[in-house]
Amino acid sequence: MTPDDLRRHGHRLVDWVADYLEGVGDYPVASRSAPGDVRAALPPHPPTSPEPFDAVLDDVASVVLPGITHWQSPDFFAYFPANASGPSILGELLSAGLGVQGMLWATSPACTELETHVLDWVVDLLGLPDRFRSDGPGGGVIEDSASSATLVAVLAARHRAGGAAAMGEMVGYASAEAHSSVRKAFTVAGFRDDQLRVVDVDEHQALRLDHLRTLVEEDVAAGRRPFFACATVGTTGTMAVDPVRAVAELVVPHGTWVHVDAAMAGAAGVVPELRWVNDGLELVDSWCFDPHKWLFTNFDCDCLYVADRSALVEALSIVPEYLRNAASDAGDVIDYRDWQVPLGRRFRALKLWFVIRHYGAEGLRHHIGRHVELAQGFAARVEVDPRFELVRPAELSLVCFRAAAGDDESERIMHAVNASGRALLSHTRVDERFVIRASIGQTTTEQRHVDALWELLGAAADGRPIEPRLQPDGFPPGARG
Amino acid sequence: MTPDDLRRHGHRLVDWVADYLEGVGDYPVASRSAPGDVRAALPPHPPTSPEPFDAVLDDVASVVLPGITHWQSPDFFAYFPANASGPSILGELLSAGLGVQGMLWATSPACTELETHVLDWVVDLLGLPDRFRSDGPGGGVIEDSASSATLVAVLAARHRAGGAAAMGEMVGYASAEAHSSVRKAFTVAGFRDDQLRVVDVDEHQALRLDHLRTLVEEDVAAGRRPFFACATVGTTGTMAVDPVRAVAELVVPHGTWVHVDAAMAGAAGVVPELRWVNDGLELVDSWCFDPHKWLFTNFDCDCLYVADRSALVEALSIVPEYLRNAASDAGDVIDYRDWQVPLGRRFRALKLWFVIRHYGAEGLRHHIGRHVELAQGFAARVEVDPRFELVRPAELSLVCFRAAAGDDESERIMHAVNASGRALLSHTRVDERFVIRASIGQTTTEQRHVDALWELLGAAADGRPIEPRLQPDGFPPGARG
Ligand SMILES: Cc1ncc(COP(=O)(O)O)c(C=O)c1O
Ligand SMILES: Cc1ncc(COP(=O)(O)O)c(C=O)c1O
Repeated sequence: MTPDDLRRHGHRLVDWVADYLEGVGDYPVASRSAPGDVRAALPPHPPTSPEPFDAVLDDVASVVLPGITHWQSPDFFAYFPANASGPSILGELLSAGLGVQGMLWATSPACTELETHVLDWVVDLLGLPDRFRSDGPGGGVIEDSASSATLVAVLAARHRAGGAAAMGEMVGYASAEAHSSVRKAFTVAGFRDDQLRVVDVDEHQALRLDHLRTLVEEDVAAGRRPFFACATVGTTGTMAVDPVRAVAELVVPHGTWVHVDAAMAGAAGVVPELRWVNDGLELVDSWCFDPHKWLFTNFDCDCLYVADRSALVEALSIVPEYLRNAASDAGDVIDYRDWQVPLGRRFRALKLWFVIRHYGAEGLRHHIGRHVELAQGFAARVEVDPRFELVRPAELSLVCFRAAAGDDESERIMHAVNASGRALLSHTRVDERFVIRASIGQTTTEQRHVDALWELLGAAADGRPIEPRLQPDGFPPGARG
Repeated sequence: MTPDDLRRHGHRLVDWVADYLEGVGDYPVASRSAPGDVRAALPPHPPTSPEPFDAVLDDVASVVLPGITHWQSPDFFAYFPANASGPSILGELLSAGLGVQGMLWATSPACTELETHVLDWVVDLLGLPDRFRSDGPGGGVIEDSASSATLVAVLAARHRAGGAAAMGEMVGYASAEAHSSVRKAFTVAGFRDDQLRVVDVDEHQALRLDHLRTLVEEDVAAGRRPFFACATVGTTGTMAVDPVRAVAELVVPHGTWVHVDAAMAGAAGVVPELRWVNDGLELVDSWCFDPHKWLFTNFDCDCLYVADRSALVEALSIVPEYLRNAASDAGDVIDYRDWQVPLGRRFRALKLWFVIRHYGAEGLRHHIGRHVELAQGFAARVEVDPRFELVRPAELSLVCFRAAAGDDESERIMHAVNASGRALLSHTRVDERFVIRASIGQTTTEQRHVDALWELLGAAADGRPIEPRLQPDGFPPGARG
């Protein structure tokens, strides 16, 4: 593709994306695709000859779009936010256009230095403890996901506790409500299932400190080594918050590495009034959050911070000859390949830098604060409505509730809303009971969308008919030229 | 950012990227940045108020660009190719614009189905064995990197051999020239260092079958379990090719999982005459290659194929309640989160789909074939020039050579070329000796760039002065508005 073609097609695609984002609220939120629909519309073999870009873009509209669940819709309340934004999309475009490999400082110094720098900015932005800054023994890195961040934290902890040779007696801890990625990290790292202890949760879905204490005492008495504990700030299911400070005070004397998973809730720290989410972080070894969830940055972008980067680097560094270079040998630079599992890495700091500069601290504060207000307003309505029960106070952006009439009714209501295409919700279970989750954090979600969701829920609860939202024709306009 | 602003800034950025790629050959290939230069040009704290996009783009030109080593330059011959292209950049833009999470089929069916479909296309395109197609027990997935592909292959193999509980007696094999990611995968997975046996290489840098046999026999005799073997097709150092078929024939009877790492060389299969790179693949359990290296697709995009997807899924699947859904429960669909370490995933199939449709099989064949011709032509010159020695025949895109006058001279010549900014080479060591590598695979590299490289090497060898290429002023034009 010549630069001129890239200009031409690029302009068209930018318009397409802008049109898409402008109109995404008109789509049924969840795709109506059945398994196999998308594949059935695609030719069985790759093309022999080149195809025009316009043909590809037509297929995006006719084949791909019907198979998309619109995470960027203002009516998307399912799972967790994945709130992209203009500056982030443009940062991703620039990253693809520069096409550099940031595996070593030497392979493109700006790729590493901008990342370190922006991650120091984020320490300011969220009010994180200084131990996570890069000018001391700690520092930050962008991982692809919170799952990978948790994995490398486990690997660093294992290294500090003696490495693979000493694994047999190591035990780790996380609550029953911790994200499945903690168990996955243990599995990947080669631990037996029983080496990750599941700590009970209290009535707020938070880790029970007394149970953690009992488990640690048992393990220590049996000669096992408590090498890792994960506390979650903002569990996926219900946004529960584990008592980070108390967990750290309990386990740090045992030499335990404390990791905090704030994948979903960490972004709240941009609002000074919400900085209680950072309580105790000055005692922990690592902490991560996902700008690709709630900080207007498209996937993938997880920020992982460690208090002591040497454990991480020692756990993951293997230097083949072809990557040796003067700057690395001199120890003057950071080589982020030693902070992650993959070797290669793209220039992900650009999108986070673009986002922070576009919004500024004030803008981010405004939007995150607004989401929390919307969630709290929604929760207040749930609370006083006899048809529903609030399952947990909405402290941040997630509202967990259920139908007063029981699980079947909760499930029926959720499915009715989702089937209408006018909003999308997801669910979890608390004490075996079905709980509807409304996660309010998409970039363009406003009061009127939350109002509409509330109306929909009421209609579904009352058994009133809901007019479905249908796939609009010829949309987005850019797709039609 | 409003859709209108996104349009406006997006057009400007597309022009910027097109200008950049049009003129990237005018830049000194390697950045001249010293450690700390980039950071010193950035403000110490994040902005409080929003900043205009133009200011950000100005800083990209003045702060970021000088810190970039230009992997997209036609004069980039270092490390390995990372050859992006227009369609791939646009695919990445679309992926960012749609902003979907493809962790489950249900969270955006098109994201999963297009991936499965395009990976079946790639089986055709490269002439891979049918066992890798998704309509049988096998199938393909996009991982972020070959490193991650090798890791999940190790995890699947470990699962098949009895899982973590049986790890103690497991042993794996890879040659001394295998990529460092194999050792990293073993470390991550919790194996002791001695559980990955290093197999000697022959005079072609390929795995020595007799040594592998000896090691396997020793291990079996000692009651150890040969659970994994990695053969490399196209080693990073010298593009050496391990005898895949013979390796498989030797170890498969022991129940060993055979993984083939063709990260760099796998793309050669688009050219029918080069399909010897696929020899023996019908006997192996998994195979991966990097479209982000040599198939015009920007990082990250590694294609991993397995002959039996169940081992992979069983090794990695953990299903929390909030991700349960009817389609997954019915077993009708693929949930790619169970094929990788991270939970989240973006819509990476788009860029590969765009690339294949833009080039068509013929176009890809043409470009890959052209790179191989360029490399072979270059090697032929090296071979007859008394100042240089060819270290290995150039079968694919990499030429390995050295100065006849010895290591110091090789190193001096390489540094002289690199310091000129007119080309970038990297090195490895073979039998302790310094070897210069010229990897010829960038999208826009043509005969004249290879000719210029040859001129430069001659000048450096003869000690003639080389006029350095300087950072052009006010470039790319788009950056100046
Ligand atoms: C608390 C928590 N941790 C981890 C994750 C995993 O996120 P990622 O896709 O970044 O790995 C999630 C996402 O659901 C989460 O909510
Ligand atoms: C043969 C081989 N395997 C694996 C890798 C690692 O690549 P990735 O960055 O995709 O993990 C490389 C890259 O240098 C390679 O050449």
